[in-house]
Amino acid sequence: MRTIQVKTESAKYPVVVGSGLLSTLWRRLPKRNSIFVLTSPEIWALWSKYFLASFPKGNQPAVLFLPAGEQYKRLTYIEQLASQLASHHADRSSLLVAFGGGIIGDIGGFLAAIYMRGIDYIQIPSTLLAQVDSSVGGKTGANLASGKNLIGSFHHPLSVFADIDLLRTLPDRELRAGLFESLKAGVIRDARLFRFMERNAETILKRGNKALEYVISASIRMKADVVGIDEKESGLRMILNFGHTVGHAIEAAMHYRKLLHGEAVAWGMLAALQLGRMRGTISTTNANRVERTILDYGPLPHFKTTAQRLLDAASRDKKNRAGVRRFVLPQEIGNASVIENVTDTELIAAIDWMLSKVKES
Amino acid sequence: MRTIQVKTESAKYPVVVGSGLLSTLWRRLPKRNSIFVLTSPEIWALWSKYFLASFPKGNQPAVLFLPAGEQYKRLTYIEQLASQLASHHADRSSLLVAFGGGIIGDIGGFLAAIYMRGIDYIQIPSTLLAQVDSSVGGKTGANLASGKNLIGSFHHPLSVFADIDLLRTLPDRELRAGLFESLKAGVIRDARLFRFMERNAETILKRGNKALEYVISASIRMKADVVGIDEKESGLRMILNFGHTVGHAIEAAMHYRKLLHGEAVAWGMLAALQLGRMRGTISTTNANRVERTILDYGPLPHFKTTAQRLLDAASRDKKNRAGVRRFVLPQEIGNASVIENVTDTELIAAIDWMLSKVKES
Ligand SMILES: NC(=O)c1ccc[n+]([C@@H]2O[C@H](COP(=O)([O-])OP(=O)(O)OC[C@H]3O[C@@H](n4cnc5c(N)ncnc54)[C@H](O)[C@@H]3O)[C@@H](O)[C@H]2O)c1
Ligand SMILES: NC(=O)c1ccc[n+]([C@@H]2O[C@H](COP(=O)([O-])OP(=O)(O)OC[C@H]3O[C@@H](n4cnc5c(N)ncnc54)[C@H](O)[C@@H]3O)[C@@H](O)[C@H]2O)c1
Ligand SMILES: [Zn+2]
Ligand SMILES: [Zn+2]
Repeated sequence: MRTIQVKTESAKYPVVVGSGLLSTLWRRLPKRNSIFVLTSPEIWALWSKYFLASFPKGNQPAVLFLPAGEQYKRLTYIEQLASQLASHHADRSSLLVAFGGGIIGDIGGFLAAIYMRGIDYIQIPSTLLAQVDSSVGGKTGANLASGKNLIGSFHHPLSVFADIDLLRTLPDRELRAGLFESLKAGVIRDARLFRFMERNAETILKRGNKALEYVISASIRMKADVVGIDEKESGLRMILNFGHTVGHAIEAAMHYRKLLHGEAVAWGMLAALQLGRMRGTISTTNANRVERTILDYGPLPHFKTTAQRLLDAASRDKKNRAGVRRFVLPQEIGNASVIENVTDTELIAAIDWMLSKVKES
Repeated sequence: MRTIQVKTESAKYPVVVGSGLLSTLWRRLPKRNSIFVLTSPEIWALWSKYFLASFPKGNQPAVLFLPAGEQYKRLTYIEQLASQLASHHADRSSLLVAFGGGIIGDIGGFLAAIYMRGIDYIQIPSTLLAQVDSSVGGKTGANLASGKNLIGSFHHPLSVFADIDLLRTLPDRELRAGLFESLKAGVIRDARLFRFMERNAETILKRGNKALEYVISASIRMKADVVGIDEKESGLRMILNFGHTVGHAIEAAMHYRKLLHGEAVAWGMLAALQLGRMRGTISTTNANRVERTILDYGPLPHFKTTAQRLLDAASRDKKNRAGVRRFVLPQEIGNASVIENVTDTELIAAIDWMLSKVKES
């Protein structure tokens, strides 16, 4: 078991990573008169027994459900969930526990952010992606029809419990998709994590407990560190978007079907690597190492689109401000920086190179 | 023209009160690439010419509309407005100007709070209530079917411009309703404001510019002061709810019809005064002075309900935590305190006394 402290301007909380956290959950929670769990029917079917095991009889939490799927990450479901909280007499002293993947975490956090202008909540991420990324950093939110995560709040949890046991039931593809965010963490800020993932792909993909615990906690430490320095993404935090400019563009161009987020980011990292090669911010040797490692955590699904379409989508990226496009380039391995002067021509070239890899794959 | 500085833990901004602010608006706004105005069709019909007068040609803001009425203060309209922002390519550097009464201010502030996890906004309150109360303090939000303001955020504006000229078109009843919040301000924390309102009811109700400017700026100063000490309502800020426990109960029992918010609060203040008389926290002389002054700003509309129904509604108040009911009592004039031990019997007695006044009126 490892504990990472997140410390930002507005919050301070522990992220606990380890086995058996669920079975001791009750005593880890703050004592409150009313506790609500937000989860999905699928996750609850798999894990409710373990989740509830530590709760004394007569102290069972109320359970709210959100179906699985990105289409439920919308304000209209937030409204329904808020109404359920109200009808169960949730008040400002109530506690919400978000138990699930990134969607449950984002919606749960946002619900907690706006119910009665803010109540406390706890994250219990159940996917690798949620454990290494979405449960940490305080970003919560929902989608609009016109774009992902266009609505939301910064609202940090009281604590995060990342129980590795939960990953036992996670589909293989979801595991791999999450691991790309860990690879990202290594490439942009933790060369040691990258090397570990480079050398131990097999063990990690076989879900070796010790290897996963290291990968997860190192990824979280990286994110906690960045968010601690720049909570609201005015500077450093943007490096977390390594691979995401093109990744988001792919997701948008595919209408969020076919590829998981992490898979799109993997392709996006390949494009960013190529831009790094072109600009000389990363040596060919290192770029090739990263490329090979990304492919080791594949297979990456195919998709069909044009460079122009991806460029258009990238130009609508939420991170752009007043028309300026921001792009994260690798600085060798373990370092990255944000630049604003990437031209359309360069980006097209990098995307074209990536699309040739898509064809080969 | 007077400027009051609001200074809380998380924000610092000026509230400017005076005439002619609209006609000089453009130069008062921060320079941004894209500016959006949220208003209602009615207000825009009355005031757009003045609003737009100072904007250079080619720099006109985009205008978003929300129909007037409490039924539009809902998440589904927030979602529509957010989609409009997105389709107009609003980004994190865009500015939103909320131009209207408290509903526009609450929805506009909430929209700004959650669009892309927070953009800047400006309040231009156009009702007396919005000028003296809702535009200051950072509370924003929307209603649920099951209750008012159950959803929201704390999100402070960059600045507030309270242009007294706007009140020229305000219906008389809306003016009076807002003045009850100013009376509340006097009773709980500003004896001088109370005395001024006690002595100058006629001038104020005739909308004398100087009298209004004093009343509005004193009310704002009181609220700024309280919110500066207790931004998130963990203590002192609760005194702003003087008259509101019973006021909210009346509104809920009447399903938010028949009475305006300020009118319900006026009745609620009468009930709270009676409780103060019963508990001896205010002398009969002073209680009578306040009572008379409240009635001077009437007429207060009739309504029909029972004390029991109001007690039930009051017990569901959002301010209650873990079952404890909080109640604000006047401490003579210019002071108030929050108590937690008001019994049902006492509250019923005070409400019964108030209901007898309703019958008389
Ligand atoms: N807030 C942030 O900082 C942040 C960061 C990255 C991603 N996100 C968001 O996270 C979301 C994606 O999260 P995700 O990848 O966890 O997807 P997800 O929440 O959709 O979960 C993926 C699938 O796995 C299932 N599942 C979850 N846990 C399981 C378990 N233990 N066993 C078996 N099945 C399980 C879910 O039911 C779902 O079908 C996106 O909406 C994205 O925008 C947010
Ligand atoms: N955020 C806070 O701290 C806070 C505090 C108090 C009240 N509120 C909220 O404020 C809302 C009530 O605000 P309100 O009383 O301003 O009501 P409102 O916004 O409904 O406005 C009242 C009416 O006056 C009209 N109007 C507005 N300005 C006008 C003008 N200059 N000339 C002519 N007509 C005009 C409006 O179209 C509307 O019909 C409620 O939703 C309440 O919950 C919020
Ligand atoms: Zn990501
Ligand atoms: Zn009020």
